[in-house]
Amino acid sequence: MNLDAIFQSAQEAFLHYKNVPGKEKAAFLRKIADGLEAERPSLIPMASEESNLPEGRITGELGRTVGQIRLFANLVEEGSWVEAVIDHADPERAPAPKPDIRRFLTALGPVVVFGASNFPLAFSTAGGDTISALAAGCPVIYKAHPAHPETSKLVGQVIHKAVIDSALPIGVFTHVEGGVEVGQALAKHPIAKAVAFTGSFAGGKALFDAASQRKEPIPVFAEMGSVNPIIVLKEKLGNNLEALAKQFVASLTLGAGQFCTNPGLIMVPAIHAEDFAEAVKKELEQIAAAPMLHEGIAEAYYNALAILQERKELDWVQVAAAKDLIKAYPALAKIKASDWLEDEHFQQEVFGSFALMVVYEHFNELYAIAQRLHGQLTITLWGEEEELAKKVDLINQLEEKCGRLLFKGVPTGVEVGYAMQHGGPYPSTTDSRFTSVGVYAIKRFARPIAFQDMPHELLPDALREENPLGIWRMVDGDFKR
Amino acid sequence: MNLDAIFQSAQEAFLHYKNVPGKEKAAFLRKIADGLEAERPSLIPMASEESNLPEGRITGELGRTVGQIRLFANLVEEGSWVEAVIDHADPERAPAPKPDIRRFLTALGPVVVFGASNFPLAFSTAGGDTISALAAGCPVIYKAHPAHPETSKLVGQVIHKAVIDSALPIGVFTHVEGGVEVGQALAKHPIAKAVAFTGSFAGGKALFDAASQRKEPIPVFAEMGSVNPIIVLKEKLGNNLEALAKQFVASLTLGAGQFCTNPGLIMVPAIHAEDFAEAVKKELEQIAAAPMLHEGIAEAYYNALAILQERKELDWVQVAAAKDLIKAYPALAKIKASDWLEDEHFQQEVFGSFALMVVYEHFNELYAIAQRLHGQLTITLWGEEEELAKKVDLINQLEEKCGRLLFKGVPTGVEVGYAMQHGGPYPSTTDSRFTSVGVYAIKRFARPIAFQDMPHELLPDALREENPLGIWRMVDGDFKR
Repeated sequence: MNLDAIFQSAQEAFLHYKNVPGKEKAAFLRKIADGLEAERPSLIPMASEESNLPEGRITGELGRTVGQIRLFANLVEEGSWVEAVIDHADPERAPAPKPDIRRFLTALGPVVVFGASNFPLAFSTAGGDTISALAAGCPVIYKAHPAHPETSKLVGQVIHKAVIDSALPIGVFTHVEGGVEVGQALAKHPIAKAVAFTGSFAGGKALFDAASQRKEPIPVFAEMGSVNPIIVLKEKLGNNLEALAKQFVASLTLGAGQFCTNPGLIMVPAIHAEDFAEAVKKELEQIAAAPMLHEGIAEAYYNALAILQERKELDWVQVAAAKDLIKAYPALAKIKASDWLEDEHFQQEVFGSFALMVVYEHFNELYAIAQRLHGQLTITLWGEEEELAKKVDLINQLEEKCGRLLFKGVPTGVEVGYAMQHGGPYPSTTDSRFTSVGVYAIKRFARPIAFQDMPHELLPDALREENPLGIWRMVDGDFKR
Repeated sequence: MNLDAIFQSAQEAFLHYKNVPGKEKAAFLRKIADGLEAERPSLIPMASEESNLPEGRITGELGRTVGQIRLFANLVEEGSWVEAVIDHADPERAPAPKPDIRRFLTALGPVVVFGASNFPLAFSTAGGDTISALAAGCPVIYKAHPAHPETSKLVGQVIHKAVIDSALPIGVFTHVEGGVEVGQALAKHPIAKAVAFTGSFAGGKALFDAASQRKEPIPVFAEMGSVNPIIVLKEKLGNNLEALAKQFVASLTLGAGQFCTNPGLIMVPAIHAEDFAEAVKKELEQIAAAPMLHEGIAEAYYNALAILQERKELDWVQVAAAKDLIKAYPALAKIKASDWLEDEHFQQEVFGSFALMVVYEHFNELYAIAQRLHGQLTITLWGEEEELAKKVDLINQLEEKCGRLLFKGVPTGVEVGYAMQHGGPYPSTTDSRFTSVGVYAIKRFARPIAFQDMPHELLPDALREENPLGIWRMVDGDFKR
């Protein structure tokens, strides 16, 4: 594999592709969406077989993948996402005339995207990272995840065909296979301008380190997961014990606990802790052990449980019923808040359907936990409205620790829309200022550029006086279209 | 100095200050602006004496500093900068109901700001970095630049008084003095959430490295300067030779060449190179040697020139007339494009009024230079409209190398407005996705947070249904107010 040739081709494609009008980029993206739908009969069984995820789940994931591609197509077709700003000249200004300055977002350059094992479609070859980079105007060098090679390849062919059919330079998308060394080489290549990754902390951190130690450091958007704490307040739990146990267990065990948003930590008041543990246990017993993505992940799951089983602070509500080469049996242990606060190890994510139930005596303990929490993708706070109203300080503190704060429902089931924030403080991601889900994921792959006194005929359409694209712009300090 | 106590106080202040309404933050910022104006009679001579910059220049800088504070006050008072987004719930949606999600920008946390030597006011204690961080809702720990200690202290007192008079927690602003070790300790403190810096490449890179190697890496916004190339096309130069020489020399020698936007590189067509060099020499001879900020900077200037004087590729148009302990005599050397392309050393910034004139024979050479250029804050392209229209590929390539592209005038004299982009690809800054000048500098210090199904009474004003602040918001995909 000649990485230099791949990046050279991406760079050449970039100088053309970055200037392709939004409508044409939208048509290109829709060709990818259509292509994926046309491959549905092959894709669903293939992805299901390669990932051990049930066909129902893969069907849903294909729907989400196609849906998010169409959403990005709409976004770039409409065009306002470029944040166009015009400050008109004032030749009369004293002491010096004011120049004409116009600014908008332009694409960063060729981007390296890593596929995720747990979403063979939605976070892989034509997933949110690839599509938001393409939408921004960046060519993508995509590194397939080795856990689903055939699915990756087929989706890669769909994108490749869309590139050809749209008469775009072939360097707009390149499908690459390989292991960790190839991944590192991609992130270190001088032409790469950004990296997007979804996966383990170790993987994301290694890419972040490689990218920040380059001669030219580049941004790495690594979404590295978290334990997504659920905090339950007293009255809410007393009033809804069984329903909440059911909801919690459903979210914990969804996809064999292999979402980045499964809750791995739940904090409950001591007064209801035993009853809640009982109710959770009853639910857990009804959950069939589910196959994990591959044997390596199952092994890591049982190894992590074995380490925790040596800790005397834990009181096991449900030990994994058996150890399986591929299936994850769910497990749950209780720990006192005071013990939890003593050791950061208890914050570590166990990838799979395990959670730690932290039992708190007083509100002070809950506040201390909130202060000590590592950065999370999500935090969920279940409370009756009246008790929430008295916990403004807690909410204020929890906001510092997450990208999305929920007051109902569960953190799994991430909406793809405008308001979604999927990305929280470190170590849940390497950059809390961006999201990897939702339309604003596009902003990871663009930077502002200002043109001063540019001849009008040379201005990009987004910045021309007559606003030919009809986009929202900030003109002399006012929003208008 | 107890850094832990300083950061603890900043963190406590943060949990309050981040939620202070925009109108109150605006009033606080205006108190700082008023305080600076009240100190004008002391500040101007003091800053002038400490920096060797003439009083006229310092007067202008104070005006800019006060102006940008008032601009940020207006921005946060109006309030739309938080990018509020509302996606309403849809309980009827199948297969699962859609939750209510609302998102806006929230402050990052305590921020460390480093003063710059070359702007004792506009990029120092109450400069753009401090003010944009305060505007975002972040407390600031400010490290004074040792080159102007008294000015820093006085401005620090003005801010401190505004904090007290606004009944804000004192941790909102802390003035710290010290050397490189203190700076490193500040950037490494676990409570710090971001760093802003304007200065040398060595200084900015050291902070970037320290911050990315922390247990929790944090963003560093280092504006490290550049050579701000000016490219002159043939007809334009032929038609305006003397006027352009005058304009170039004025920008080169402004502030003794100590702006981050002074042009240190100018590319001219061979056909007019001798005449242009002659005209520039004539202009340079009329420029009096100007005192630099301090002796260390003057010494570095002459050392850099001495290294260049050993290079046989250079043909000196004007050698610095004398070597002075404090004053910079301007200097200029010519080099062939083919020689320039051979050695990256010729891209290094010489801080002071020196420029390299690169003489190109063909357009191909110019394009090769554009490809080889390092990242720049600005690039200026002077051409007649008809010749520019034929150079679209060159423009397209130059866009990749800068944050601001000018077609008239000179890069010095940076407008503080909405459209300004002061920040370019590495190594001119560590993060080309943000600006350090203009209102959008505020976005460096904020991150998005989403609230899912938050009880309405708990929502921040910016996200309440009735839009009590009257700000621009994206509601279900439409911009409205």
